[in-house]
Parts: sequence; C-alpha cells; structure tokens
Amino acid sequence: MAKFIKKRSKKAGLPPGTLVHIGEEQGERTRIRVLEYDEVNFHERGLESLEECFLFKKEPTVTWVNVEGVHEVAVLEKLGNCFGLHPLVMEDILNTDQRPKIENYGEDLFIVLKILSYDESKGEIGAEQASLVLRANAVLSFTEKEKSVFTPIQDRLRNGKGRLRKMGADYLVYTLLDIIVDHYFAILEKLGEKVEELEEILLANPSAAVLQQIQTLKKEMIFLRRWVWPLREVINSLEKGESSWIREGTRFYLRDVYDHTVQVMDTIEIFRDMLSGMLDIYLSSLNNRMNGVMKVLTIIATIFMPLTFLAGVYGMNFKHMPELEWRWGYPVVWIIMASVVVFMLISFRRKKWL
Amino acid sequence: MAKFIKKRSKKAGLPPGTLVHIGEEQGERTRIRVLEYDEVNFHERGLESLEECFLFKKEPTVTWVNVEGVHEVAVLEKLGNCFGLHPLVMEDILNTDQRPKIENYGEDLFIVLKILSYDESKGEIGAEQASLVLRANAVLSFTEKEKSVFTPIQDRLRNGKGRLRKMGADYLVYTLLDIIVDHYFAILEKLGEKVEELEEILLANPSAAVLQQIQTLKKEMIFLRRWVWPLREVINSLEKGESSWIREGTRFYLRDVYDHTVQVMDTIEIFRDMLSGMLDIYLSSLNNRMNGVMKVLTIIATIFMPLTFLAGVYGMNFKHMPELEWRWGYPVVWIIMASVVVFMLISFRRKKWL
Amino acid sequence: MAKFIKKRSKKAGLPPGTLVHIGEEQGERTRIRVLEYDEVNFHERGLESLEECFLFKKEPTVTWVNVEGVHEVAVLEKLGNCFGLHPLVMEDILNTDQRPKIENYGEDLFIVLKILSYDESKGEIGAEQASLVLRANAVLSFTEKEKSVFTPIQDRLRNGKGRLRKMGADYLVYTLLDIIVDHYFAILEKLGEKVEELEEILLANPSAAVLQQIQTLKKEMIFLRRWVWPLREVINSLEKGESSWIREGTRFYLRDVYDHTVQVMDTIEIFRDMLSGMLDIYLSSLNNRMNGVMKVLTIIATIFMPLTFLAGVYGMNFKHMPELEWRWGYPVVWIIMASVVVFMLISFRRKKWL
Amino acid sequence: MAKFIKKRSKKAGLPPGTLVHIGEEQGERTRIRVLEYDEVNFHERGLESLEECFLFKKEPTVTWVNVEGVHEVAVLEKLGNCFGLHPLVMEDILNTDQRPKIENYGEDLFIVLKILSYDESKGEIGAEQASLVLRANAVLSFTEKEKSVFTPIQDRLRNGKGRLRKMGADYLVYTLLDIIVDHYFAILEKLGEKVEELEEILLANPSAAVLQQIQTLKKEMIFLRRWVWPLREVINSLEKGESSWIREGTRFYLRDVYDHTVQVMDTIEIFRDMLSGMLDIYLSSLNNRMNGVMKVLTIIATIFMPLTFLAGVYGMNFKHMPELEWRWGYPVVWIIMASVVVFMLISFRRKKWL
Amino acid sequence: MAKFIKKRSKKAGLPPGTLVHIGEEQGERTRIRVLEYDEVNFHERGLESLEECFLFKKEPTVTWVNVEGVHEVAVLEKLGNCFGLHPLVMEDILNTDQRPKIENYGEDLFIVLKILSYDESKGEIGAEQASLVLRANAVLSFTEKEKSVFTPIQDRLRNGKGRLRKMGADYLVYTLLDIIVDHYFAILEKLGEKVEELEEILLANPSAAVLQQIQTLKKEMIFLRRWVWPLREVINSLEKGESSWIREGTRFYLRDVYDHTVQVMDTIEIFRDMLSGMLDIYLSSLNNRMNGVMKVLTIIATIFMPLTFLAGVYGMNFKHMPELEWRWGYPVVWIIMASVVVFMLISFRRKKWL
Repeated sequence: MAKFIKKRSKKAGLPPGTLVHIGEEQGERTRIRVLEYDEVNFHERGLESLEECFLFKKEPTVTWVNVEGVHEVAVLEKLGNCFGLHPLVMEDILNTDQRPKIENYGEDLFIVLKILSYDESKGEIGAEQASLVLRANAVLSFTEKEKSVFTPIQDRLRNGKGRLRKMGADYLVYTLLDIIVDHYFAILEKLGEKVEELEEILLANPSAAVLQQIQTLKKEMIFLRRWVWPLREVINSLEKGESSWIREGTRFYLRDVYDHTVQVMDTIEIFRDMLSGMLDIYLSSLNNRMNGVMKVLTIIATIFMPLTFLAGVYGMNFKHMPELEWRWGYPVVWIIMASVVVFMLISFRRKKWL
Repeated sequence: MAKFIKKRSKKAGLPPGTLVHIGEEQGERTRIRVLEYDEVNFHERGLESLEECFLFKKEPTVTWVNVEGVHEVAVLEKLGNCFGLHPLVMEDILNTDQRPKIENYGEDLFIVLKILSYDESKGEIGAEQASLVLRANAVLSFTEKEKSVFTPIQDRLRNGKGRLRKMGADYLVYTLLDIIVDHYFAILEKLGEKVEELEEILLANPSAAVLQQIQTLKKEMIFLRRWVWPLREVINSLEKGESSWIREGTRFYLRDVYDHTVQVMDTIEIFRDMLSGMLDIYLSSLNNRMNGVMKVLTIIATIFMPLTFLAGVYGMNFKHMPELEWRWGYPVVWIIMASVVVFMLISFRRKKWL
Repeated sequence: MAKFIKKRSKKAGLPPGTLVHIGEEQGERTRIRVLEYDEVNFHERGLESLEECFLFKKEPTVTWVNVEGVHEVAVLEKLGNCFGLHPLVMEDILNTDQRPKIENYGEDLFIVLKILSYDESKGEIGAEQASLVLRANAVLSFTEKEKSVFTPIQDRLRNGKGRLRKMGADYLVYTLLDIIVDHYFAILEKLGEKVEELEEILLANPSAAVLQQIQTLKKEMIFLRRWVWPLREVINSLEKGESSWIREGTRFYLRDVYDHTVQVMDTIEIFRDMLSGMLDIYLSSLNNRMNGVMKVLTIIATIFMPLTFLAGVYGMNFKHMPELEWRWGYPVVWIIMASVVVFMLISFRRKKWL
Repeated sequence: MAKFIKKRSKKAGLPPGTLVHIGEEQGERTRIRVLEYDEVNFHERGLESLEECFLFKKEPTVTWVNVEGVHEVAVLEKLGNCFGLHPLVMEDILNTDQRPKIENYGEDLFIVLKILSYDESKGEIGAEQASLVLRANAVLSFTEKEKSVFTPIQDRLRNGKGRLRKMGADYLVYTLLDIIVDHYFAILEKLGEKVEELEEILLANPSAAVLQQIQTLKKEMIFLRRWVWPLREVINSLEKGESSWIREGTRFYLRDVYDHTVQVMDTIEIFRDMLSGMLDIYLSSLNNRMNGVMKVLTIIATIFMPLTFLAGVYGMNFKHMPELEWRWGYPVVWIIMASVVVFMLISFRRKKWL
Repeated sequence: MAKFIKKRSKKAGLPPGTLVHIGEEQGERTRIRVLEYDEVNFHERGLESLEECFLFKKEPTVTWVNVEGVHEVAVLEKLGNCFGLHPLVMEDILNTDQRPKIENYGEDLFIVLKILSYDESKGEIGAEQASLVLRANAVLSFTEKEKSVFTPIQDRLRNGKGRLRKMGADYLVYTLLDIIVDHYFAILEKLGEKVEELEEILLANPSAAVLQQIQTLKKEMIFLRRWVWPLREVINSLEKGESSWIREGTRFYLRDVYDHTVQVMDTIEIFRDMLSGMLDIYLSSLNNRMNGVMKVLTIIATIFMPLTFLAGVYGMNFKHMPELEWRWGYPVVWIIMASVVVFMLISFRRKKWL
C-alpha cells in the first residue's frame, strides 16, 4: 500500500504554489528534449542551458518539449518561469500524487494522467505521472522516469511518416494520450492472465494463499479504477471542446481514445465482478471441505461407537451372563457387528455421504 | 475468459488508423454482396473486383453493401478507400473488440454492435461484431462470420414484400438493428432455461458443481450486460436525432428497438438477481447439510457414550462389586441401557432432531 | 419463472409490424364494448360487426372502446385498421410481454401497463397487460382477461354519478390508471401479510422451507419492481405534458396517481430490505443451531470420555493393581466419577453452555 | 410491521376524491382552533360551528387554523368545503398513509409530512401525519393526535415575543416545519442510545436476542428513511420557489430546515452502516464461539481417546500378555498415560488453543 | 459514538435564531484577534472591548477577525450584532454539529467545515468546527479550540512574504480552506498506517480484537466521509461563482483545493474497500481455523476408535474365544493395530490433511 498513498503531509502549511517534489526520486537527472517540426522541417535537440528556451517560444512550427524526471526542483522551476507556466501547474507537475485531471489556464491547457507499466520482476503494476501542457503551437510533456513510452512517437516524428507531422499541437497531444491508453490494455491483459490463472488454482486447490492473491488483485483493481475513472472525464471534456486549441478534425481521434478508456473501465469492472465470484467460490469451498471432514468423523464414529459398546457389553464381569457360556457366542457377536457395519454403510450411501 | 478479452496489445504504439485485424480469424474469404433497390427495382450482385465500386457510389436507389468476414485487411482497406470511409471507422471495423457505439462522421453515421448466437455444441454464447455505416442512400454492413443473421432481410428485399422496399436506407439500418436485437431474446430464452434447470438441480442436490455453473452463468450475464448496456445509448441517440439521415417516420420504429433493448437489459438484471438468490440458497444448503451431519454424529455419540461407559463400569475388576454377584444384575443393566436410549430419543425428538 | 419470461423468439426474423400474439391464450373470444357519453347522454353497446366502427369515429361525445382478450389476431387487426392505429401499436398490444411505457404517435397517445391480481388458489401474483390509446375524444383500452378491473368504472359511467361523466377522455384515462394502481395496494397488502407470516415462522422455526419462501417472495418483488418502476416514468411524463390531449385540470389527478406509484415502489423496496434482513436472521439461526448441536455433543463427550477412561483403567488385568483389592475401591471410583461430572457441569454453566 | 403498512385496499375502486379515513382512529373528537394575528393584534378561539368559518376567510391578518384529529370525515368534509380545498387535498389529509410531499394547487400550497414521536412504554417510534395548507395569508394545519407538537408555537404567538408575530403566513409554515424536524433529532438521539447500548451488549454477550434487536432497529431505520428522504425534496422545492407565497426573507430559514433534514438523513445512514457493522460482528462472534466449543471437544477427545485405548489394551484377556505379569506394569502404564497427557497439553499450548 | 452525535434536543421548540451552544465546552475564554493588512501595511491586535469593533468595519484594507472558542454565547452574540451577522449564521456558528455547507446571505458568504486532528494519546480522530464569513473586504473565522491550525497563516501575514498580502479577502478564505484540507492528508496518512498495520496483524494472527479494530476504523471512515463529502460541494459551488466576492484569479486556486478534497474522498473510499477486503479475510480465516480444529479431532477419532474397538473385542469374556489362547495372539493384535494406524496416516496424507 505504501506505494499508492504518497506522503503529502510535508506540504501541509506551506503557501500554495510552493514547489515541493512528492514521489519517489528516480535517481536520474532531469533530461529535456525539444522537437520542432512541421510537415517539411524537423529539428531536435537536448536542452543544455535553460536560458536559451526563450528563443523558440515564438517559433511558428509545432514545438514539443519533452521533460523526463521531475524531482530536480530547481531545474523545473527555471523551466516553468521560462515558459510562463502558472505556479499551480508547476506545483501539480512536481506533486506526483495527482488524480488525472484537465485544467484550463486560459492560454494553457493542463492535463495530468498516469502511465502504467507492469513490473515483471516484482509482479506488480507501477504508475508514473505524466503531465501535458498544450498551448497554441507547443506541447510540454513531463514524465517521471527516463525510459519513456513516448519514444515511438519521437521516432515517428523523426521518420516523418504518417499524419503526425502534418497536424498541429493538438494532434500531438492526442497521440501522447493514445499511446498511454494503449499501454493500459497491455496491463489489463497481464491482469487477465493472472485472474485466469487464479481461477484455475482456485478450482484445483483453494488454499488460503489463493484468498490472499484474490485480495491483492482486488486492491490492484481499486487503484487502476482510481487512475482510469477520472481519465474518462478528462478526455471527454477535451473532446467536448473545453479548449480552443483542439481543432475539429482532432475530435474524432479524441473520441476514439475516449472509447478506449471506457473499454478499459469496462474490463476493470468485469475483473472486479470475476474476483467477487471467486471469493464466493473460495468461501463455499472452505465450507465444502469442512463438510467433508465432518462426514469422515461422523462415519467413523457412527460405525465404531456401537461396535465398541457391544464389545464393552461382553467385557462385563457379571456372574450370570448366559451368552458368555454359549458355544457360538463369540462368532455370533462378530456376525452382529458385521451386520451393524453393513447397515451403517448402506444408510451412508443412501445419504450420499459415500 | 480468453474468448472475452481479446489481444489488443499488438496495436500498442502503432499510429492511429493503422489497420490491424483484432479477433479470431474466421478462416473464410471476405465476401461482398451489393443489393440495390427501390420500390420497383431490385438488383443484386457479388462484388468481383473492387475497382467497380466507384460505379454505384452515386446511384439514386438505396444501396446495401453487405460484407462478411473482416480479417482480410487488404481487401477491406481497398473497400474503405473506395467508399471514402474515415480511417478510424476502418480501424474499428477490423478491431472486433469494440463496445457498441455510435459515431457521427459528418457524411457517415457509424454504428458498432454485437450479434449474439448460442453455440449448442459448446453450450456457450458466441459474439460477433457487426459494423454498420449509414450514409445518404446507402448502407454498408460488416459482419465477422459468413452465415449471417441478415439473410432473412435479403430474402425480404428479394421478395419485395412489406414496407422495406418502399423506405429509405435509414429503415434498412433499423431492420438490421431489429433482427440483431430479436436474436438477443433467443439467447435470453436459452439462458432462462439454464437458470430454471439450475434452480431445480439446486433444490434437489446442491453439489459444488452447481456453484460452478451458477458462477459461469453469472459471468455470462456480465458479458451480456457489457454488450447490451451501451447499445441502449446507441439506439437512443439514433432515435433522438443524432443524424440527419434518420427520417421522422423511422423514429417510431427505432423507439421500438429501443424498448426491446431495455427489455433485454431488464431480463439480464432479473437473471442476475435470481443467480444471486441461488447462491444464497446454495450457501445455506451447505450449512444445512453440515447441520445434518453434525446431528447424526451427536445423536450417535450421545446414545452410545453413556452405554459404553456403563458397560465399562461392569467390566471393572474390583474384588468387591456386589452388583456382579446379583442374580438379575446383567438383565437390569440391559434395562437401564434401554431406558437411557429411550430417554435420549425422546429428548432428541423434542429438539426436532429426529 | 416460466410465467415471467414469455416466448418471444417466434417473432425473430419477422418484419416489424407483423401481428403475432405473445402470451397465454385466455381461451375466450375477444369481446368489444363501446361506451359513448357526455354529461347528459350515455350510450352503450357490444360491438357486433367490425364494419360499423367507422360510424362513431367522429362523434363529439367521449367514446370508450373496451376490448377484452387480445389473442384473436384477426379481430384485432380489423379493429386496428378501422381505428387507424399505427402497426407498432398493434404489435405491442398483441405482444403481452411489454414493459410499461408511454409513446406519442402524433394523434394517439399509447400507454402500456400491467394489471396485477393475486391468485388465491395458486398463492401467486398474476399479471395481465393493459394497453390504452388516448386520442382527441376517445379512449381504446385492451386487456387480456375477460373479468376486467374496469367494471366498476363502467358502472360509474352508467350511474352518471361523480366527476367522470363531466370530464373528457383524458380524465377517463386517469380513472383507468387510478383503478389499476389502486389494485397494486391490494397486492402489496397480500405480500405484506406473507412477509409478516414468514417473519413469525422464521423466529419460531427457521427451516429450509422458510428460505425457499423468502427466495420466492424476493423473486416476486423483483418482478413487481420490473412492472411498477417504469410505470412511474410513464405517469410522470403523462403529467408533465407529453401530450396535448391532457387538460390542465387532469394533471392534479395524474400527480395523485404518480404519488401512489411512488408509494408502491417505496413499499416494494421496504419489503426487499425486510426480506434481506430475514435472510440474515435465517443464516445466523442456522449457525446458532449448529452451535447448539455442537454444545450437546461436546458436553456429552466431555462428561463420558473421562468416566469411560476411568472404568477402562480398572478393567485392566494387571496382576498387581492394589486398588482392585481394596474393600472400598469400587464405591470410591463411583465417588470420583460423580465428582468429575459435577466439576464438568459447573464449568459448563460458567461458560453459559447450560 | 402492521403499524407501518396501512390498509388502503378499502379505497380500491372508489372514485377519486372520495373521502375515506385511512389510519388508526385516535378516539377523540376533531378539535379546531383558529388563531388570527398580526404584529399588534392576537385573537384566538375554538371553532364551535363550521358555518362561521366564512367570516374570517377574507381577514387581512394572518390566520392559522389548527385541526387536531382527522378521523371525523363529516366534520373535515364541511371544513374542506368551507375553505374551498381541492378534493384531492381533502383525500390526502384523511389518508394518513401518505409519503411526505408538496403540491401546488394554484392558490394553495399543500404539504404532507410526518411528526415522529418516541413511545417510551412500547419502546418504538410512532408516526403521525401532519398536513399543511399555505395560502395568501392563512395556514391550515391538520394533525392526527390531540397533544400537538405545535403547542409551543401557539404559546409563542400568544406571548407575542420573537419574530413570529411580525412575519407572514409563510414564516408560520417554516416555524411548523422547523419544530417537526427538531423533533426528529430527539428521535435520533433515542435511537443513537439504543445503538450504543446494543453495541455494548454485543461485545459482552452476543446472543440471538441481539440479532433480533439489530434487525428491529434496522427496520426502524428503513421506515425513518422512508419518511425523511422525501421531506428533503419537499423542503428543497419549497425553498427553491415553488410557490409565490414564500417571501424572499423566509428562504434563508427554509434552507436552515433543509440543512437539518439533510443532517437527519446523514445520521440515519450512519446508523445503518453501524448496524451493518454490528451484524458482521455478531456473525463472526457466532463463528468464534463455535470455534471455542470445537476446541474444547477436540482437546477432550484428543486426551482421553489414547488413554482409553491404552486402558483397553491391558483389559484384553489374552493368555500370553507378559506386561500383565510385570511387578511394575500398572504404575508404568500410569506413567505412560501421564506423559501422553503432558505431551498433548504442550502441543495444544503451541497451537494457542489453551 | 457519543463524540459524533451531539445533543441537539435541548434546542427543540426554541424559536429559530436562539443562540445555544451545542458541543463540548473547550474550557477556555473566547479570544478575538483582528488582523488588518494590505500589500504594505499590517496591523494586528487582540480585541479588548467589543464596542470598538465598529471602528474597523469600514476600513479599506483586508480585515481578518479570528475568533477562537465559541462557547461564550454572550460574547459571540455581541460580536454578531456588531458585525451585523444574520441570526441563522450566529446560530450555526454556535451549533458545532453542522455539516459542511456554504450559504449566501447577500452581503455575506457563510462557510462551515471541519478541522480534523489526530489525537495521539487517545488514538482517535478529533473534529472541530470552523466557520468562515466572507464579505467585501473582510473575513471572520470562528474555531472551537485555542491552538489554531491558522497560526502559520498569521505568521505568513506578519512576515509579509508570498502572494497572500497582495491579494484580497477571497484569497485569504482560500488560504484558510487550503490549510484545513492539507491537514486532512495528515489524518489519512495516520489512518493509512493503521490500516497497513492491521493488515499485517490480520495475516499473522487473526484474533477477535482485529475484527473490533477493523470495525472501529470502518466507523471512522464513515464519519470522515460525512465531513468531507459535503465539503466537495461547498468548494465546488464556491469556485463555480456562487458569490461576487470571489475574484477570477482566485478560482484557479479554489479548483486546486477542490482537487484535494476529491483526492481525500478517493482515499477514504479506497480505505473502505480495503477494510471490506480485510473483513472477508478475517471471516475466512475463522473458517480455516475451524477446519484445522476439526481435522485434528477427526484424525484422532479415526485412529483411536478402531483401535479401542479392537482392544474391546479381546476384552470380551466369552468362554470360547480361540484367539485368546493363541501363543502369538497378543503381538498379532499389536501388529494389526499398527497397520490400521499406518493405513489411516497414509489416507490422511492423501487427503492433504497432514
């Protein structure tokens, strides 16, 4: 759980707009890449010194500033000032415990969402915050980690193939959203496999460990939901025309991403329902097993108690017990005992206990 | 579950509009049939070469292009270009893991929904994606499998009976929606029979297999819901005038289909409630059975423990045990034992255990 | 359940507007009664031949055509044509598996709802579909069964007492709705009695049969809900002015019926909550009873096991067992045994098991 | 339950507006008090003869007609006619099984709500219907019982202190609503005490009676909810300006009552949640107790079964059993038995059963 | 619970606007501090005599009147009159059992919310009511306790650093809201730690005490929800422009606080889901443990019952029992017994009971 609820309390009491990094330090330096392009030109460079940023602020082509790593407060503060970002935007970029949201700051449209990845080694879902700022002909993107999911898009820009180079900054934002949401499906497939696996284990051998795993998966669903649910609203209000930077032609594409997030939500809900069903199965299998144990006990007791009693009777030391003297007393007792056993077994079979 | 969550991850990172078929390959070739009709004329042909499609693009009669099989990407791409379909429409037609939805692309109205069928051999519900494109006087329909639910409508067109030939393309879309939704009722009847059957088994013999089947049915309800729920919205927004291609007279009919989908949803909810009730019955029947087992054990123990104790007492080897010497000691012990048994049985009957 | 989910599949594939009767055949002929009235005049006749219906189509008085029995497709088709009813209206009248709904067909306002009755002999709720068509100065009503709930209203019209004869066709529709909803309260009282009865049985003797009955009642609540819930919407949209045939003065009365349906819904919800509570009581009473059984077993075992052991000890055949030779050995053993019993009983009482 | 679901069925089939009293007869005569006041004048009288009511109909001061007891149909009918109340209003006043509601009859604003009281002797909540009619400068109030919650307000009017005498009829309605809602808090405190008490009993000794009481409280919450929930809507629509009789200055006060009803609802929801939690505790305490019983049984059986077996072995009558001849055979057996007991006790302590 | 449901009943029947303090008396005197500031000036004083308050009523700078302690009714009444607060505002300030709400009294905007703190010694959450009144250029704040969460804001004003001194009264309200909501995160962290701790205990040793703690935490979540949920609405309507005192630039900041409250709600919901999951684990661990106990019992009984029976057989005193005479009878019986034990152990291992 520690990974989900981040420490925010160190901010309590500070004036709003104070820049404090909340989240894990990723241990790497903040890397800034600037990509400028239009249909024919493409220019790319790493940002060495933050003073030069003023230069491309007014360029007519589309400018994409991609920032990886948000824990270097000083660097980001400089960057924010240089681009004239609102102090609250800067605060939210550094505070990596945001819910997905969209905010309209006049010139800037500010979007926060989560990039999800599956950590194979730990077997759990990792989340990283992505912040996007869209303005007239520029996009600023901030991610926490270095190896970005945005790399394929940079490659597409470099190659100049496809629609991307021909369209504006709004289409670039769409492309970034699209690739992030596409990654959600990969996560869902992983979780789907886990659910399936668990279902099989549950039927074969419902141990307490299974319950533990069901609960862990349920918890992961809760957090997934928390990250995806508000995203729907974000993309919907983006599509429905919250900002003037979104052109008409891009809306079709945004609607497509919207459909994908709805599908992601649907699948999460289905997994939740499945896990609830599995819990029911687990609990009733516990009950069933107890039933099994009790039946064994009852069968044993029901067979041996009467027999032991009979044996006890003829172990009594009364002077006058005529049966004890009989020639065939002992075999007859054995026959009686055998009959009791047979009778018991038949009645158990009738009750379907055997 | 594998059948419900399809692999989408192979699309992650590709530019939007890239045509990739997602879904099972149905193993047959894509078949295209064109039906042109108005009140007096009817012309039908299979489409041999895709170049000729340009010919009927402007014909004044209603044109229905029915495509069966969507896994041949090249064929469909040609078709899409020939009809000027938006790349996102083409992408969605090929990706058979869509939720039902309606989208307005200016000229074209694009509808996605599911055709459900019941596979008797496997005893499970099968789903196939149907995509409909409605434009001024033409309808394009895409289904995954060859043996289409649309055959009776083609027959009706050929016969020329009924309202269908007199009305426009919007009425044809309505007719297609209507026949798809009508098939849902057949599925619901099948499921209803299963639920009923299960209910009877549950009362007769609530085994663990019943639980399994209840859960399977519950899961099927979850998926049905997923496919039908958004359809309501689709047909509602179709009726409420999303598109200018829907004429006033057709709205009454669309409302009718809308009512049917609501009824389908209602029935699904009722089945869900019933299955929940069955789960409760199952769990308490487990409990009841355990109670039964425990009672048997307790009755046996309660009767035989005192008897065995008595027998044990007179099996002791004390020198001075006057009872042992008595003439009627042995019969008296038997009488005492019999009284104990009778007393126990009476008290059990009072507790309603017998 | 069979009675709730009706066979609709025989309609699949037929063109819309095809008249097929769905529902139980009530075995009687369709009976048509025409009542024409205004404040001073009242004229009533059974409809012999369907040709004459054209005569009263334009009469200025209020005309009420009451049709009992909807399974004679031919008769109803004639009737529909004669009154110019929309084919979809006719289809819905014959299909008795409709949800309550209201539809505006320009001239005609079409209302479907359920008449509920309690079948004392079977001890279950019966539902019958009522379809009402309201036009300028006429009302058509269709019911499935012969003995109609509308009889008291016909009597009121004949007597000419009260407001009914002075008001228009819209007030007649209100009166019909009102009497149908009033019958719901009778059903609820019946169910209320059943719930109460069950509650008492549950406290006295919570057997498995009680669970069965709780589930049956729950199922009946589900269906009641299904029939009443959409009715709220129907009457609300009727009151809120869906149609121009509803006069201002009638709205107060419709609001009153609306309140009644809300009350019916409330009561159904309360019953559902109560039944859930009863399920909890039942389940925990099972648990309690198991506890009781287990206690008996444990008490018996705890008392007799040590005693039997003691008896066993002095039944051993060792050569050197000094106690066996003692003069008071046997009585001393009895005293020890009695002490064990007393000690056990005290400790059970401390645990509140006795 | 009988007290909550009142018999309405005697009304079924009667024409709307027929006056029938539904509810318990309170056994007292209907008492009518008229209070006329403005800032300086105050006039009060009991209404002797109903003919005189016409006199004060047009007086310019605020007139409050307070009616206690609604089961004398004839008296109330006269009153209704004299004040020109709508027949549906009269019907609702007599039918004491209404949900809280507000209705606008042009001149009159009609409000129905419940007065709750706690009957200490029976230990249950009692509900009484209050109906208020607000017109230009008059308020009519109807309650079922004689000893009214409105007495303090009459006293305040008589004393002439506070804002009440200076304000109009709408403020009087507010004052009546306010005192009724204030009584709800007293009920909630009583229920709160009960819940608290139950919680303590539950922890000390979770018997089946506790379950019964939890369910009873839950049922009371259901009914409270039913009475308070619609009241929120009533007061909200009163405040939001449903009627022209509500002056601007009174809205602040109505908002205050609205806040109180919301708070009442909140508290009811909290109690419901608490009771659910208590149910969980109860059920798991049952389980825990069963565990305890089972442990005792298992400990006893596990200790004495091996011992009894050992004793049985040396009770066998084989000719050649060397141990029986040994000098120290008997003490050695005792030592073995003691070791078994010690070993068992240690292993139970390890399992934390002791 | 006593701490959550406060006694309101002492107010029942009093005229609205009567000032009664509801809540715990904090035992300290009411302390009033006045801070006047603009960008350059800052003036602060404690309010000695309430007559002088009239002086700063019209000052052009921003005035913040901070009142600590609301139980001295007389002092607060004077204050209310001096500032011309609406009687209902005064009533709500004194009644510390309010839900968070916002109310627009023309000139004044009145906000009620809760300050939460974690009492380390008692280990529970404490709540204190904060009331804020915003007017043109003044803010009045009322808190219950002396040591206020507002101290850091007073310090910031004194230091004159940051945005606060440059902005208007609306920004001051925002700052107060912000610091209160920031404290919620500290509470959530505390609760998060508790939940985590409980989760670990639950896995290690699921005792009845854990259940108790889960329920206590659940109850705390219920109350947190009750305090935070309406706050969302409050801040939303503040941001959406309920009042003219809120300037455009402040809205961005209010949106930020709104986001925080949503995040608080989200986290509460997640904790609730987690606690539900823990309840499931607890209940099934009870079941599991019972299973364990039953297995021990069954194993013991299944092994020793047949053995005791065998011993009993050869303890019988029949004259003619050939086995008793055999030379190797006794050892053979031992061998048979050993085989039974081995056979039983093997079959238990197969059932995975050992």
